[in-house]
Amino acid sequence: MIEELLHQSARWLSGQGPEAEVVLSSRVRLARNLTRYPFVHRAKIEQLRRIGTTVRNSLRKIGYLKGANLIELDSLEPLDRFFLAERHLISHDLIKHTRERILLLNENEDITIIVNEEDHLRLQAFTSGLDLYEAYRSIDQVDSGLEAELDYAFSDSFGYLTACPTNVGTGMRASVLLHLPALVLTKEIDKILRAVSQLGISVRGLYGEGTEVKGNFFQISNQITLGKKEEDILAELEKIVRDIITYENGARETLLRDARAFIEDKIFRSYGIIKNARILTSDEIVNLFSAVRLGIGLRLLDSVGIGTLNELLIFTQPAHLQRLFGKEMRPDERDIARANYVRERVL
Amino acid sequence: MIEELLHQSARWLSGQGPEAEVVLSSRVRLARNLTRYPFVHRAKIEQLRRIGTTVRNSLRKIGYLKGANLIELDSLEPLDRFFLAERHLISHDLIKHTRERILLLNENEDITIIVNEEDHLRLQAFTSGLDLYEAYRSIDQVDSGLEAELDYAFSDSFGYLTACPTNVGTGMRASVLLHLPALVLTKEIDKILRAVSQLGISVRGLYGEGTEVKGNFFQISNQITLGKKEEDILAELEKIVRDIITYENGARETLLRDARAFIEDKIFRSYGIIKNARILTSDEIVNLFSAVRLGIGLRLLDSVGIGTLNELLIFTQPAHLQRLFGKEMRPDERDIARANYVRERVL
Repeated sequence: MIEELLHQSARWLSGQGPEAEVVLSSRVRLARNLTRYPFVHRAKIEQLRRIGTTVRNSLRKIGYLKGANLIELDSLEPLDRFFLAERHLISHDLIKHTRERILLLNENEDITIIVNEEDHLRLQAFTSGLDLYEAYRSIDQVDSGLEAELDYAFSDSFGYLTACPTNVGTGMRASVLLHLPALVLTKEIDKILRAVSQLGISVRGLYGEGTEVKGNFFQISNQITLGKKEEDILAELEKIVRDIITYENGARETLLRDARAFIEDKIFRSYGIIKNARILTSDEIVNLFSAVRLGIGLRLLDSVGIGTLNELLIFTQPAHLQRLFGKEMRPDERDIARANYVRERVL
Repeated sequence: MIEELLHQSARWLSGQGPEAEVVLSSRVRLARNLTRYPFVHRAKIEQLRRIGTTVRNSLRKIGYLKGANLIELDSLEPLDRFFLAERHLISHDLIKHTRERILLLNENEDITIIVNEEDHLRLQAFTSGLDLYEAYRSIDQVDSGLEAELDYAFSDSFGYLTACPTNVGTGMRASVLLHLPALVLTKEIDKILRAVSQLGISVRGLYGEGTEVKGNFFQISNQITLGKKEEDILAELEKIVRDIITYENGARETLLRDARAFIEDKIFRSYGIIKNARILTSDEIVNLFSAVRLGIGLRLLDSVGIGTLNELLIFTQPAHLQRLFGKEMRPDERDIARANYVRERVL
C-alpha cells in the first residue's frame, strides 16, 4: 500500500484547482462519533475494535470500500506512519498512538476516513486549489451514506457530539493551505493574520495544529463549529481566503514594481540552488520551493510546474525519501539524497 | 585604446600556462631609474617630462614602440584609470597621481612599461600560470634594449638604485598569483603562509600591496632584491610556489576524500548561483568564481574554462562593467549588470 503511494501523486496536489498559484489545497474534515460507545480516549480496546468492525461493515454496505485502501496503523512500521503523516493522510498524533486505528483512503487520495483517532470517525476530503464546496460536497456524500447506516451521536440542541468541545455542532473543520510569500516579504502578513484571527479564523503551519510556519505556507481554518450551518462556515472562510488572495496578489505587484531585481534574484537563485545543490536540508528546501513557486506565479519561471512543486514538497520529506531510496538514512545522508532526487525532478 | 582593451583578453589570463589550475599568473617587474634626474617624488614637472621624452625616444630606437600602445595617464578619465588598475596594468596609486605618467603596453598586454611612477621606469612582464623564467626572459630583453640606450642609475656595490630602498639591487619583484581554496577550507593556509613569510616571501591580496585577500587568491612575491642574482631569486620563489601547489593539491585530495558532498555542494551551488542570480556584488562573485575554479580543478565541473573565469574576474569589476555597458552606474545598478553579464558568459 505504501509502495503504491510512493509511485503516485495525490490528486489534490496537482496544482490544477482554482487559485492554485496561491492556494495549494482545500480540505474539509467532519468529526463523528457513534452512540453507545464511549469516546475514544475513554473506550476499552474491545470497544474500539467493535467500532472498527461496525464502521467497516457500513462502508462496505454503502459501497465506499470498493477500490479504497484500508490500513491498520498498528500493522505499520514507524517509518511508514511518518510517511502517512508527511502525506497529510494522518495527523502527527497518530504516528505514536496506533491502537485500533484504521485509515481508509480512496484511489485518488482525496477522501480519507480515520477510525478511532480523537473521534470515532474523522471524514476528510481534499481538493486542489481553492475549492471548499467541492471538498464539502464529496465528504458530505460519504457522511450521508454512513449516517444512514450508523447511529451518530447527535444532540438536537448541540448538533454532532465530539470528544473535544471545540468540534461540537457541525463537527466540521474547513481549511485552506495558502502560500503567501509576497505578504511575508512586504511584512504585511502579521497585520493580515491578526485581522483574520479576529474573525474566528485560526492560522497554523504546513502540518496543521502545533506545527511551524515554513516556506510561507499558512493553513487557515474556521475555529467556530457551533451555531452556524456548514454552508455559512464555508462561505465565510472562502470570503476571507479570497480577500487574502487579493492582498497577496497586490503585494506581488508591489514587489515587481518596487523591487524587481531583488525578487528576481531571490527566485532565480533559489531555482539555481535547487538545480545544482548536492546537500539540501528539509528546512532549506521548503524555502527554495517557496521562492520558485512565487516565480511561477509571477510568470518569471516556467520550467517547473506548480504541481511538481506541490508534490516535491511532500516527497522530499524524511520518510518519503527513505522509502524512495529503499533504505533508512541518517539526516546527513537524507540531505544528499534529497538534493539528488530534486535535481532529477526539476528541469 | 581603452575600447580595444575592452574587446580583447590579455594573454596572461588565458589559463593555458603551467599549473594554471592553481597558479593564475606569474609576473616579473624591474625598477629602473635614470642618472642625472632626481627620483620621481623629488623631480620637477619639467624633469619628469624630459624623462618621458627620453624614454620614448629610446623605445622608438630599439623598435619596442612598434605595435605598442602609449597612454598618457593625465589624458584619461578617472574611470579609465580605474579600468587600467582593474586590468593589473597600473597600480592603484596611479589612479590618483597621474602627473607626467605614461603607460606603454604591447599588443598581448603582457609587457608593460610605466614611466614616472615610483621609479622612472617600471618594466613588467606577465605570463599565464607558473612561468617566472619566461616572464623574466621577456622583460629582461626589453630591459637590455633600454639599458643600451639609457644611463641607468647603477652602483657597483649596490646594483640598480631605486626610489625606495626595498627595491635596490636587482630592482626585481617576481610574483605569482595563487588560488588556494583547499588550503583555506582545510584551515592549513595560515600555517603555510607563516612558514613562507619566514623565507623572505611576502603574501598579499589579488591586487598586490595593501589589498585584501579575496576569493582565496594570494599573491606571493620575493621581499629581498639585494645581494642575490635574479636567477637565484626566481629559483627560490619557484621552489616555494611548487611546494605550496603540492600542499594545495594534497588538501584538495583530502577534501574529496573526507568531505566530498560538502565540497561538491559548495561548488555546484556557486555554479548555480552564477548561472541564475540577478544581483551579484563584486565581493560575492569573487568567492563564487573561487568555488567554480576549484570545481574545474577537481574535474567536477567542465562547462566553464579556467581562462573564462580568469577573464571574468577582471571584467566583472566596476570600471570594466561600466565600460562594457557604456555608462556610469551606481553600485546597485552594477550588481545587476554584473549578474547579467556573467550569465551570458558562463554556459
